[in-house]
Amino acid sequence: MAPTHEIAHLGHVELLTPEPERSLWFFTDILGMTENGRDGDSVYLRTYDDYEQYSLILTGHETSGLRRTALRTSSQENLDRLAKRAEQAGRGVARLPAAAGIGPSYLCTDPDGHEIQLYWETEWYQAPEELRPALKNQPQAFPGHGVGVRRLDHVNYLAAEVEPNGAFIRDVLGGAVSEQIMNDDGSIPAQWLHFTNKSYELVYTSDWTGSRGRLHHIAFATNAREDILRAADICLENGVFIETGPHKHAIQQTFFLYVYEPGGNRIELCNPLTRLILAPDWKTITWTQGERAKGQAWGLKTIESFHTHGTPPVAANT
Amino acid sequence: MAPTHEIAHLGHVELLTPEPERSLWFFTDILGMTENGRDGDSVYLRTYDDYEQYSLILTGHETSGLRRTALRTSSQENLDRLAKRAEQAGRGVARLPAAAGIGPSYLCTDPDGHEIQLYWETEWYQAPEELRPALKNQPQAFPGHGVGVRRLDHVNYLAAEVEPNGAFIRDVLGGAVSEQIMNDDGSIPAQWLHFTNKSYELVYTSDWTGSRGRLHHIAFATNAREDILRAADICLENGVFIETGPHKHAIQQTFFLYVYEPGGNRIELCNPLTRLILAPDWKTITWTQGERAKGQAWGLKTIESFHTHGTPPVAANT
Amino acid sequence: MAPTHEIAHLGHVELLTPEPERSLWFFTDILGMTENGRDGDSVYLRTYDDYEQYSLILTGHETSGLRRTALRTSSQENLDRLAKRAEQAGRGVARLPAAAGIGPSYLCTDPDGHEIQLYWETEWYQAPEELRPALKNQPQAFPGHGVGVRRLDHVNYLAAEVEPNGAFIRDVLGGAVSEQIMNDDGSIPAQWLHFTNKSYELVYTSDWTGSRGRLHHIAFATNAREDILRAADICLENGVFIETGPHKHAIQQTFFLYVYEPGGNRIELCNPLTRLILAPDWKTITWTQGERAKGQAWGLKTIESFHTHGTPPVAANT
Amino acid sequence: MAPTHEIAHLGHVELLTPEPERSLWFFTDILGMTENGRDGDSVYLRTYDDYEQYSLILTGHETSGLRRTALRTSSQENLDRLAKRAEQAGRGVARLPAAAGIGPSYLCTDPDGHEIQLYWETEWYQAPEELRPALKNQPQAFPGHGVGVRRLDHVNYLAAEVEPNGAFIRDVLGGAVSEQIMNDDGSIPAQWLHFTNKSYELVYTSDWTGSRGRLHHIAFATNAREDILRAADICLENGVFIETGPHKHAIQQTFFLYVYEPGGNRIELCNPLTRLILAPDWKTITWTQGERAKGQAWGLKTIESFHTHGTPPVAANT
Repeated sequence: MAPTHEIAHLGHVELLTPEPERSLWFFTDILGMTENGRDGDSVYLRTYDDYEQYSLILTGHETSGLRRTALRTSSQENLDRLAKRAEQAGRGVARLPAAAGIGPSYLCTDPDGHEIQLYWETEWYQAPEELRPALKNQPQAFPGHGVGVRRLDHVNYLAAEVEPNGAFIRDVLGGAVSEQIMNDDGSIPAQWLHFTNKSYELVYTSDWTGSRGRLHHIAFATNAREDILRAADICLENGVFIETGPHKHAIQQTFFLYVYEPGGNRIELCNPLTRLILAPDWKTITWTQGERAKGQAWGLKTIESFHTHGTPPVAANT
Repeated sequence: MAPTHEIAHLGHVELLTPEPERSLWFFTDILGMTENGRDGDSVYLRTYDDYEQYSLILTGHETSGLRRTALRTSSQENLDRLAKRAEQAGRGVARLPAAAGIGPSYLCTDPDGHEIQLYWETEWYQAPEELRPALKNQPQAFPGHGVGVRRLDHVNYLAAEVEPNGAFIRDVLGGAVSEQIMNDDGSIPAQWLHFTNKSYELVYTSDWTGSRGRLHHIAFATNAREDILRAADICLENGVFIETGPHKHAIQQTFFLYVYEPGGNRIELCNPLTRLILAPDWKTITWTQGERAKGQAWGLKTIESFHTHGTPPVAANT
Repeated sequence: MAPTHEIAHLGHVELLTPEPERSLWFFTDILGMTENGRDGDSVYLRTYDDYEQYSLILTGHETSGLRRTALRTSSQENLDRLAKRAEQAGRGVARLPAAAGIGPSYLCTDPDGHEIQLYWETEWYQAPEELRPALKNQPQAFPGHGVGVRRLDHVNYLAAEVEPNGAFIRDVLGGAVSEQIMNDDGSIPAQWLHFTNKSYELVYTSDWTGSRGRLHHIAFATNAREDILRAADICLENGVFIETGPHKHAIQQTFFLYVYEPGGNRIELCNPLTRLILAPDWKTITWTQGERAKGQAWGLKTIESFHTHGTPPVAANT
Repeated sequence: MAPTHEIAHLGHVELLTPEPERSLWFFTDILGMTENGRDGDSVYLRTYDDYEQYSLILTGHETSGLRRTALRTSSQENLDRLAKRAEQAGRGVARLPAAAGIGPSYLCTDPDGHEIQLYWETEWYQAPEELRPALKNQPQAFPGHGVGVRRLDHVNYLAAEVEPNGAFIRDVLGGAVSEQIMNDDGSIPAQWLHFTNKSYELVYTSDWTGSRGRLHHIAFATNAREDILRAADICLENGVFIETGPHKHAIQQTFFLYVYEPGGNRIELCNPLTRLILAPDWKTITWTQGERAKGQAWGLKTIESFHTHGTPPVAANT
């Protein structure tokens, strides 16, 4: 089933951290993101290629975790249509008024309880003098410090059950499953969903703790694989915990590095090379349990914590 | 104006060459493409990431040049709709029966006379044993020889006048102008058009000779910028003429290398990093004559032949 | 203690394989080396940047393993001096007459029994027409296929005891220890030795099986880290076993990929970036057991087989 | 003729700038170097891989240009020997007492008048807490900002006549010519000289203005070619003038980018890949005028200013 294009792309996420200052240091000094406003306990952060105001809201909180994912629709009409479908599916929460940088939005939840906010109107970013890019087809100057991430690339949720959530993204939000894993017993421990040529923007992975609403990781894309190797050096020098990588995923073939930001949330730095899903009738790729057991593309075994670490930690997740 | 997604992507091109054997050597040995069938004077060639049967038809001919560009629509309904619009615009040529690897199609021409073929049905590629990939989300094994191009990326036409052609792609085929150049006198010497998240797939550049129907270049995408630097070494060692680059375009920011294949057609090897147009309401970027005069992104001056070399050569273009 | 420069560089090795045809396929098709002569069961192979005739003699044999390492001295006088020192140290074996591509040489063994051949005269390579490079400061055209390794970079021996062997390289051959590991009990499980600005050319690692004369790996250098990532894809597609990597060593900071060639010998593909030992009074870096336990630079744990796999296999090593 | 190894490596240079603050910004913010002390109008700067205290003294002055090049010898004995030879050649200037970070030294000049300082004793760098590296085989933490240059790589002098200067480096300092250009009339417009495995550390290029003692450029090495592409983006964004590149030199095959620091001195960012001169009997490569006319490796024509811009500017050079 082809995606409908009603969702244009992942817009931003709100990430919670019990270590707001150190987390902010991570996103600005290490990743090279730019602060673009504050509101209460929240700092708005942007990558250099965000045409919108921000792609990350970093909020000081008692726990780590993900509060919300915002998706931009491809028109007002599509926003209305999606809101209606979500409501009909019993997943609607509220219509929200315009907020920082975006217009009126619609809040719903996936079956696992992750908040998903849909919006259409957005305020295009105009760089102030000191951040003005040399090339006018880029919203902001390329940062000469830190990793220099280009964009928020995708969100990987943990879910008690994967399939109902994948079905929600597919049936209600118009996405499609580009790749998935199927165990020998027919269960689906992970699904990768896409809306456009990007081969995935939302991922659901089975939460072995049975918890609901948790985050596996959010990912930021870099320009090149070399940026990820350089990022590993930067993380090493700055005491940022590297969980696994750099390596290449078999699924989606993304080149990756996983680190934990100081608040405990897992962050992926990723490079998809130039891979795109161009076929409008892409057929879901299903990986078997045996194929999955081979590890990553070049043989790296999946690290144990990859199956257990999520945010917020289970004890705190009440 | 947002693209309609009626066109899914550039499918393939038919390229003419007066040096069929040497051109074939270039596309297979140098670029690392794979032969996938022959028909008369034509050889069908594919990149390793083509989900369809081929992306290049290389045809022996008395001249160089581009015979046809095939675009895949995103549904049969869209194919019918586009065919109707082309006919109404007076640009229709013929309905064509199913041919190698694709279903029934519709042939039209842009105002400059370049043939554009629209099709929906396509035969997905199943690699034979010796070309089977290690990872099942890839159509064919990554080639260990030559440049190892991933996909046919875009086509850059020369046109006597740019604007009518851009309007055709926009109004008839549902594309949108992502970037363009505007001279001080208001004329438009070049337009870059896109249909999806790819920031361009068709480009029109003013033909200073006033000829019609000519080709500036076709481009193949690589996985990384390093592949393009390595490609430059491979071309150097094998006597393939390098016209200009490697360098980074200011417009579209593509990292590029331009070479001439032995038949005389200009071929671009390009890497877009991970840049995508995600905004459904992208606003056309217009570069002024003055901005353009600065040369490429890092200051390389545009080489003279870039404005004069097209295929077929003017004398032969009758 | 500074190296004496009496040894100019690692010249070539003779590698044994019970699978000569498949091993040859690995070194030519996968690594991109060039055959340059045969003699009996041996094939002479060269990287594109070898100024000498070859850097690898691949010899069909009943087992895998390393028969010999040849080191070029920096003058005839130095060859004579080293031969004398080796003889005085009771490690001399024989004076050998001129052989393929090299002049008269002196054969000795390190205390663990690895054969080391010293030579001065060498025949500079003149590429035949079809391998002539485009740039005259390079011995042979850059290969457009396979990994395209630049040079034989280093040899890593297994030894029952590391220190006597390191002392031999130091005291007899004029090398120096650039880095080493020291266990908490004062024992030395590994030493990296160098002769010039290259930070290592010979390495001794403790053989946990207590065997003598075995090989841990030989390494070939590539131009860039990207070549190693591409190599991983090539190995994946061609069924070459990847043991570990790509990753960055903490010791020596080399970017690496370990694979097994079809004969069973471990081969490292490595990129030292542009690191050199420039200080003539470099002080040996000693890593503690605790530092070593942290794994590789970016946290990859050292894989179990890295401590156990050597060639020839122990059972065969009689 | 083989180099003698009496010179171990290029140690540091003193660069003059009429724009000390902006030049300092360039070397620290753009290149990522670290300040390590001040003295009067001079700032001492180091790359992250300098084992010595610094590799650049940046001195405010009425003009741009190079005041001095310091070369480290490989022993005290070699320092004495070289000093004696320089004195006998009539090129001696003075014995200098120990100064910042280095022991007693000997000052001489090449025939064109460039000051060359020879020293042996040096103070090894111990990083303060905040700059301590994660890996103990590296002097200082890898900088997460700017280009992150690894080392001062080479100095390229302009000289009224090339040959007498090359002869001085060869006969007095024990270097060797690794590559050179010879015009059809037998004159030598450029020579590249080396002392060790690095294929060049000092270069002489003919000064078309006939001036003496001027600088063509100093060069800093990066880890990878990708760092140079990233550097081009950083320079573009920060208004640093890019003169030419990135591209690959035919001579020495170095991947390069040339920029002007704000004081007007030309700075090369370079990556030699992993190329080394290993042969102790390397034969000088001589490029003909015709070969040179082909431009750089991949065909880039040498830019006009490359032959005319030197520092200090001619008018100021009195």
